Amino acid sequence: MIDIQNQPDYRNIPIDKVGIKGLKYPVKVLDKTTGLQSTVAQISMYVDLPHQCKGTHMSRFVEILHLFRTKVSLESITNILEDMKKILGAKSSHIEITFPYFIEKKSPETGSKGLMDYTCSIIGSSNGKTDTDIVLTVAVPVTSVCPCSKEISEYGAHNQRGEVLVSTRFKRLIWIEHIVELVETCASCDIFSVLKREDEKFVTEKAYDNPKFVEDIARDVAKALMEDNNITWFSVSAENFESIHNHSAYAYIEKGIVS
Amino acid sequence: MIDIQNQPDYRNIPIDKVGIKGLKYPVKVLDKTTGLQSTVAQISMYVDLPHQCKGTHMSRFVEILHLFRTKVSLESITNILEDMKKILGAKSSHIEITFPYFIEKKSPETGSKGLMDYTCSIIGSSNGKTDTDIVLTVAVPVTSVCPCSKEISEYGAHNQRGEVLVSTRFKRLIWIEHIVELVETCASCDIFSVLKREDEKFVTEKAYDNPKFVEDIARDVAKALMEDNNITWFSVSAENFESIHNHSAYAYIEKGIVS
Amino acid sequence: MIDIQNQPDYRNIPIDKVGIKGLKYPVKVLDKTTGLQSTVAQISMYVDLPHQCKGTHMSRFVEILHLFRTKVSLESITNILEDMKKILGAKSSHIEITFPYFIEKKSPETGSKGLMDYTCSIIGSSNGKTDTDIVLTVAVPVTSVCPCSKEISEYGAHNQRGEVLVSTRFKRLIWIEHIVELVETCASCDIFSVLKREDEKFVTEKAYDNPKFVEDIARDVAKALMEDNNITWFSVSAENFESIHNHSAYAYIEKGIVS
Amino acid sequence: MIDIQNQPDYRNIPIDKVGIKGLKYPVKVLDKTTGLQSTVAQISMYVDLPHQCKGTHMSRFVEILHLFRTKVSLESITNILEDMKKILGAKSSHIEITFPYFIEKKSPETGSKGLMDYTCSIIGSSNGKTDTDIVLTVAVPVTSVCPCSKEISEYGAHNQRGEVLVSTRFKRLIWIEHIVELVETCASCDIFSVLKREDEKFVTEKAYDNPKFVEDIARDVAKALMEDNNITWFSVSAENFESIHNHSAYAYIEKGIVS
Repeated sequence: MIDIQNQPDYRNIPIDKVGIKGLKYPVKVLDKTTGLQSTVAQISMYVDLPHQCKGTHMSRFVEILHLFRTKVSLESITNILEDMKKILGAKSSHIEITFPYFIEKKSPETGSKGLMDYTCSIIGSSNGKTDTDIVLTVAVPVTSVCPCSKEISEYGAHNQRGEVLVSTRFKRLIWIEHIVELVETCASCDIFSVLKREDEKFVTEKAYDNPKFVEDIARDVAKALMEDNNITWFSVSAENFESIHNHSAYAYIEKGIVS
Repeated sequence: MIDIQNQPDYRNIPIDKVGIKGLKYPVKVLDKTTGLQSTVAQISMYVDLPHQCKGTHMSRFVEILHLFRTKVSLESITNILEDMKKILGAKSSHIEITFPYFIEKKSPETGSKGLMDYTCSIIGSSNGKTDTDIVLTVAVPVTSVCPCSKEISEYGAHNQRGEVLVSTRFKRLIWIEHIVELVETCASCDIFSVLKREDEKFVTEKAYDNPKFVEDIARDVAKALMEDNNITWFSVSAENFESIHNHSAYAYIEKGIVS
Repeated sequence: MIDIQNQPDYRNIPIDKVGIKGLKYPVKVLDKTTGLQSTVAQISMYVDLPHQCKGTHMSRFVEILHLFRTKVSLESITNILEDMKKILGAKSSHIEITFPYFIEKKSPETGSKGLMDYTCSIIGSSNGKTDTDIVLTVAVPVTSVCPCSKEISEYGAHNQRGEVLVSTRFKRLIWIEHIVELVETCASCDIFSVLKREDEKFVTEKAYDNPKFVEDIARDVAKALMEDNNITWFSVSAENFESIHNHSAYAYIEKGIVS
Repeated sequence: MIDIQNQPDYRNIPIDKVGIKGLKYPVKVLDKTTGLQSTVAQISMYVDLPHQCKGTHMSRFVEILHLFRTKVSLESITNILEDMKKILGAKSSHIEITFPYFIEKKSPETGSKGLMDYTCSIIGSSNGKTDTDIVLTVAVPVTSVCPCSKEISEYGAHNQRGEVLVSTRFKRLIWIEHIVELVETCASCDIFSVLKREDEKFVTEKAYDNPKFVEDIARDVAKALMEDNNITWFSVSAENFESIHNHSAYAYIEKGIVS
């Protein structure tokens, strides 16, 4: 049977990335507390294609993923990237894995247990020359109270759910839990899935005591990331789903750290 | 050229709805203030298909829409539905048009002008026997302050953006503006696209003076709709994008009103 | 501490549904092959609220879910609904659970293994009078080849990915796998995550031999569901993401079956 | 009234981008055929914030947009960016405007008219040093027929809707219509909103005569863009919503062109 993909191409144009996009697959990801956590990921996998080749072999990407699905971690990503290059005969490989990650959290006063979801993604690239490049992104939902509203009003202060998105490059492997904790400390208050009345009083007062603009949250998270000498690069965005508007307030800081 | 769709079908199964779904099209909709408003709609159009016909003629739906796109209103929907039945040779027709609708709003203290968007949909059905059935749905973003949080806390109160979805059937045509105004009166406070500091003080204090659960908002909107003798049926849902959780609080009331 | 939710309400308006919406939670669902399958669900849980009560207790919904998350099935839904009524002091309860469900599938010629995802939802309602009402919905992606295009063209035929959505009520519990198999048999061809070249030849020819309009797919699925005497009600929609248009073709059939 | 935003900040961390995100607004955009086209945009607007300032003034972004909404073009973007810097007292400004753009298209055989929608975005950045940086992105839906499937099968060939995303930087202003035409020429066939049977025969046969992998489409678009000496940089991605899989095939090429 003829292999059309393997035929020569004469346009003289190499392709940066070619592969599969948007595949939904069940995976197990490394969990600090329980070892492995079952979740469902959205996955894209690409390799480069040299100018003289007509096409890549799409089915091999899924076959590689099928083998690796039982242990996805910042470490195993490197192996997947190597396998992709070897099996597809490519010089560079790229993978993007996005999944909800769940952490058990106790409410602050009554200690009621519930699971909080944090959308995470691991983006890995390998070009065969330098080290593999890996970026971990964690989305952390938070509460923010507006300092301006609190200051100028006789009483009350508008507040809302926000989302802080942190992307990092790092020397040694880091835990999702570490980023979550770092961000939650920088918000007006963190968020829970279960809150009894005593807890609700606690988070209301804590948030009101701790008003923060999106600018403040972005800066406080940036400051904490700059003080972590394991982090070599980061970007942080803070987005508030404003309770007084139908659009968001947004702040973004990016920084490469010279060691 | 053979007309496959016109061939007979022997499975003896009539089809309730067949047609096109998810077509994006620019339309002009009736605007209380300016006459007509340009917007972009997402449209689905269906007719029934009797058991003995193999298929419908999909291109005719778009042709009908292309003619009617310059004036979409609760009135013109009836004409579109009649044309659909005539041109497709059907007994019943159904259309769903969803679009953002913009209303100019002045901020409460400084009178700063901005446009607020309200996602609306018109769903029309005609079966040729009784009157055309038309449902207007309007989504109104609002601010809600939690009464429990306010009461039990020493200071502050968690609040958030919410969305109130109102669907109505009615005797005489009604304006989107009427529904928006009715809902905004029932929230802790309404929402604006532009707020200067004096305005922000106003909405913060107004909302804090006016705490409401999703249950309260749903009930107050339901009460107002029940008192409007033009409304013959309604459903109202209130959803709060909780600032202390990563999920929503929700309340729903539906009521047919015997005249 | 005062319980605001427990205070009396004087508006005289009962609430049909009140609770939590859009909570993301990891769950284990009944799996025909492996016993239990880990996945991630989007969940909404509501109860009714009588006219004299001001509010419901939102945290209890999450606590109930937290206990039941380790085994979600058509059977356990009944228990969840009973617990919701008991713990919330309500007369009726309602739950909606939506999740991707994965089934291992071998490619038709080379037997290559991969996992296919099917988005499923279980909607359960209990009003305490009659039996619990449970609806299972399964979304099955398929290939469809256009019979008109095949017939009128000298060669080729436009085809595309489609999605068939089947909702059922039933006497005895049914398997997701049963619905998936039933639907896949009715399409031009079924869909796979891994296809080698021999497999691609197979599915191309099978689909071309088997052209179907959305009307045909909807009717063939309806016919199969009508012949299954365990099914007491169903709706089926077939949607084609047309390769020649930027919108979908759509057909819908609903049927209650008198036993 | 105190201006909290104007207070000094001592964290010594400048913010790259701060402003509003996800505002929906009606705008008029430059239209090659009709002069101006009414559509609805999703808009984000940011400026930088120096390390010594606590916060920006969010309401001013909406006020600027409110003035400029009646004429959005690649040219007017420069003026908006200048106004943003001036009115917000910033050194750099950034805007992202995404909107559906409609072009009337006649079907290939019968000349039936319909509107096709192309999602476009304009991203502009100004840092006050060099020229304003503007990137135009156009999403063009297309038909693609798989060359491998055609070659190895006795008859038929799987095909599907795809989307080609082209981003460009340029010397002189370019028209959205130019990019659309360039891309549609490179696909197996272009897509229409209205097709009668004669047209359907035409597009089926044209597509079958013209099989293309995502790799081919990406390369042919890249080649055409490289030959256009007005283009100084581009990226092109081709994504096929595979009719035989539940995921996409994808190819990406990016190129800066040295003049």
